Amino acid sequence: MVGAGQLARMTAQAAIGLGVRFRVLAASPADSAARVCADVRVGDYRSVCDLLDFAGGCDVVTFDHEHVPGQALEELERAAVPIHPAARALRFTQDKLAMRDRLGALGVASPRCAPVKGVADVEAFAAGSGWPVVLKAVSGGYDGKGVWVCESPGQAAGVVAHGIPLLVEEHVEFGRELAALVARSPHRQGAAYPVVQTVQRDGICREVLAPAPGLAADLAVEAQRLALRIAAELDVTGLLAVELFETGHGLLVNELAMRPHNCGHWTIEGARTSQFEQHLRAVLDLPLGAPGATAPQAVMANVLGGDDGDVYSRYTHVMAADPGVKVHFYGKPARPGRKIGHVTVLGDDVAELRDRATRAASYLRWGDEDRP
Amino acid sequence: MVGAGQLARMTAQAAIGLGVRFRVLAASPADSAARVCADVRVGDYRSVCDLLDFAGGCDVVTFDHEHVPGQALEELERAAVPIHPAARALRFTQDKLAMRDRLGALGVASPRCAPVKGVADVEAFAAGSGWPVVLKAVSGGYDGKGVWVCESPGQAAGVVAHGIPLLVEEHVEFGRELAALVARSPHRQGAAYPVVQTVQRDGICREVLAPAPGLAADLAVEAQRLALRIAAELDVTGLLAVELFETGHGLLVNELAMRPHNCGHWTIEGARTSQFEQHLRAVLDLPLGAPGATAPQAVMANVLGGDDGDVYSRYTHVMAADPGVKVHFYGKPARPGRKIGHVTVLGDDVAELRDRATRAASYLRWGDEDRP
Repeated sequence: MVGAGQLARMTAQAAIGLGVRFRVLAASPADSAARVCADVRVGDYRSVCDLLDFAGGCDVVTFDHEHVPGQALEELERAAVPIHPAARALRFTQDKLAMRDRLGALGVASPRCAPVKGVADVEAFAAGSGWPVVLKAVSGGYDGKGVWVCESPGQAAGVVAHGIPLLVEEHVEFGRELAALVARSPHRQGAAYPVVQTVQRDGICREVLAPAPGLAADLAVEAQRLALRIAAELDVTGLLAVELFETGHGLLVNELAMRPHNCGHWTIEGARTSQFEQHLRAVLDLPLGAPGATAPQAVMANVLGGDDGDVYSRYTHVMAADPGVKVHFYGKPARPGRKIGHVTVLGDDVAELRDRATRAASYLRWGDEDRP
Repeated sequence: MVGAGQLARMTAQAAIGLGVRFRVLAASPADSAARVCADVRVGDYRSVCDLLDFAGGCDVVTFDHEHVPGQALEELERAAVPIHPAARALRFTQDKLAMRDRLGALGVASPRCAPVKGVADVEAFAAGSGWPVVLKAVSGGYDGKGVWVCESPGQAAGVVAHGIPLLVEEHVEFGRELAALVARSPHRQGAAYPVVQTVQRDGICREVLAPAPGLAADLAVEAQRLALRIAAELDVTGLLAVELFETGHGLLVNELAMRPHNCGHWTIEGARTSQFEQHLRAVLDLPLGAPGATAPQAVMANVLGGDDGDVYSRYTHVMAADPGVKVHFYGKPARPGRKIGHVTVLGDDVAELRDRATRAASYLRWGDEDRP
């Protein structure tokens, strides 16, 4: 797996159970996954040399992020390195304009958008959509980075001044955000997890409710079918996470990711097969595991770093306060606002579970249960 | 963790989730846990030098087997290495005569036994108990090794001729075997898992049914209380597995283990907190996790190596045949009869789950679903 963040770290855990040898390409031996893997190569994921060296002896190469340059992916493929997902699929996670174009061609609804060369493009788009509009980096954004809600041409000009490739998108009034996570193997087997609700704050996913509470059964099936269809049309191998807006006019596709995703962390305890095991099974072309839930309701809350850089000393309190909360730490320094772990609780009552999960996450962050 | 077998391997998975740095002392880099851990020291667990070197920088040292010599444990303690469980507890897993004496002093029922210096001792014991009798190595046995059922003085003489310290034990007519798994921390917090039934064949655990089907509630509580009491009396820190015979006259304690145990592998999926996480929490003196079950019934079946040394090619079939079976492989060469993995299934109906688990385990071993 190229990349050694928390997604690779949790994939490493799954690889141990499967008896699959697992190597990561880390930027540093201190990376989250590099701290726990037996087979770590340190190198630059943008370097074809490093990638080829890393891939030597691997049956399959996969990714914990979408930042490997498309040209490097193509060079790997020319060198007959089996990469999953393939370059032709991954490009849609690296170029949001290409992704939106492709979805449009497939007849999949998504927020209206347009390329931006200058502020004039934003103003022209806003003349149709109205303000505010959303500016997005065409590639490379995550956790709210690379997304700007702009109320005026002046604000838009400030973003355009960054000089990075942008697109402009209508600001959608949505009821809530959903995510559909599916897996697809080279043999074309598919598996769909229950559709979840994601709760974001400041562009960062804070909670995942699995399944999405009160989601109409037909809409849940529609979202799963949509994700499976996109996976098939884009020839995705491995996981595909489809981030959706639920609106009064139906579902809109917001983002795609082709890797284990924050919206699926709940599956470690909450599904028969975790997303990390499923991704490995899919990219290795093994039969997929059962994606069904193990409990009526799961709630996952991300643990963000607090102000004091100290989180581990609060561990004991959280474990003592709620022995049923499952805490996952990523072995990362607790920088403010950074995802450093997550907690999962399973049960029946979504309100009770949200309370328990967010209390634990908040206490780990702040040492104070009353802060959000 | 001293020792790098499958128990250390699965403990390593739990350590990743907890964000706890984990080092193993392996006999070889090819050991099951050494293949997957980031921090591996190769050394001899019988060497005080190697143990001290290994322990440098560790907050706590624990064990995946009971074979570290008592004298070495004491030397570690004299060197102020915090070991859990402590030498005073571990000695009862290393000397079955001392263990039985201690249980007797505590008023805990176990099969009658006596030390053996020669065949005359066996004959004298059998004069009271009748034949057959069971001869056991006083220390070091596992998976049926070190246990001999003898029908006659001649058979006993053959065992005595091995020249190892032995005890003789009455051959108990039991209904079935149970196991009670508990954890105890230095803070004296205790947690008890549901009592399970273990199904042995040729002295090797083949299946674990969790909870033990049809076990009377009062007997289950008795077994849990018994295990918690033994853990407290022996000052165990970490896990204690108590192997029990269920007889017409109540429960008899057969064996003790102070580490993660085969009877608890089902807890990875089947309990809120796996035994591996629980052992880490206990030895690190963190609050213990909830030991409750996640499903009405869990069945675990061990996967043994077959005749052809080939098991991994049958993986695909098992995954395809039953996507709900959770397969765990230990990364060990598939020598005949050796435990190389296990499978777990969760659900409601114990007969159906046993069928699924044993089919998967049997197919992985033999490539043929009709062999036991």
